Amino acid sequence: MRIGELSRRSGVPVATLKHYLREGLLPRGRATSRTQAEYGEGHVHRLRLLRALTEVGGLSLAAARTVLDAVSTPGTSVTQALGVATDALPPRPSQDADLDLSPALRALELAGWVTWPDSAAVRQLATAMRALEAAGLDASPELVAERARLLAPLVREEVAAVPDGALADAVTFAALGTVLYEPVLLALRRLGHQDASVRRFGMPEPGS
Amino acid sequence: MRIGELSRRSGVPVATLKHYLREGLLPRGRATSRTQAEYGEGHVHRLRLLRALTEVGGLSLAAARTVLDAVSTPGTSVTQALGVATDALPPRPSQDADLDLSPALRALELAGWVTWPDSAAVRQLATAMRALEAAGLDASPELVAERARLLAPLVREEVAAVPDGALADAVTFAALGTVLYEPVLLALRRLGHQDASVRRFGMPEPGS
Repeated sequence: MRIGELSRRSGVPVATLKHYLREGLLPRGRATSRTQAEYGEGHVHRLRLLRALTEVGGLSLAAARTVLDAVSTPGTSVTQALGVATDALPPRPSQDADLDLSPALRALELAGWVTWPDSAAVRQLATAMRALEAAGLDASPELVAERARLLAPLVREEVAAVPDGALADAVTFAALGTVLYEPVLLALRRLGHQDASVRRFGMPEPGS
Repeated sequence: MRIGELSRRSGVPVATLKHYLREGLLPRGRATSRTQAEYGEGHVHRLRLLRALTEVGGLSLAAARTVLDAVSTPGTSVTQALGVATDALPPRPSQDADLDLSPALRALELAGWVTWPDSAAVRQLATAMRALEAAGLDASPELVAERARLLAPLVREEVAAVPDGALADAVTFAALGTVLYEPVLLALRRLGHQDASVRRFGMPEPGS
């Protein structure tokens, strides 16, 4: 298809498509003349991922590109490719050289989870635990391990839903799932708090 | 204490404190002369919350002020006050008048959760489900209800941890907990995905 058709199919204006082509966010089409190129379903698919990551996931174009590159150059195993994609996603972990990872690693050990000490998510957890502690809230490895145990059935169900087929599909699903299911999880957590509050503290007064 | 001592105790520069006073983010101290005022422990406490919300929670000063105001003017019940605080927190839900809430409400009904149709978190859930659907991922009420059931033990444990004492303490804990435990939960989810990936797909190759 020509660029005008790609624009109609994807809902992305032609000027924006040209910007993506210049920035390397979208691979060039097959040149059919000096000024025209032909685009395929792969372009439509990549644009769909790009818009989902930026508009829903709130990623910058640079961050979306890192994720798309991870997805399209998978590693030697699904586990490794998933790790690359996950580590590329925001938030960027603290680069603070003084960050003490040991409370986070201790929590994961108590929970019995397999992990890698150099994973970005370990740094994210250590940063989040340090922030809780600074605010005077409980951030002990024991409490975090207990929360991990309570979260385990949910995350295992999410990974069980990863398709069994091609590696690129699994990684695409995992990267999109991490970004796009996060808002679902956070909204559900708040709604669960409302439900649990009513159960513990009773209904609000009518009309309030 | 004088403003210099408040600055030392809180780690916030005097110029920033003066900005907070002008903007109403920090209540004025008790005037002791035409140019001097006396500050108390309440000021130290409020500054601690303010820094936690902005630096850790990533809230703008305006959003932090909304949360602090909700915390310091509680409603008639803990449930209601928690709802006010939660609804004030980011992300702002979509104001799209065409947003269809029914898939989100159906998911909550299937999960058996008590909720309010006009809650900001219902709009957040509906927005997140619409985004999943747009990206071609499963966003059925049945799937979301199943995730809600798997998340329920965790959120009930979080609400059980809310202190039993004063209303303001409960709301402060809930508002801070919502913002500050979110990064813990998201980091744990990713680490749980790593663990579940290893269990399902095996360890990555050594050295990779």
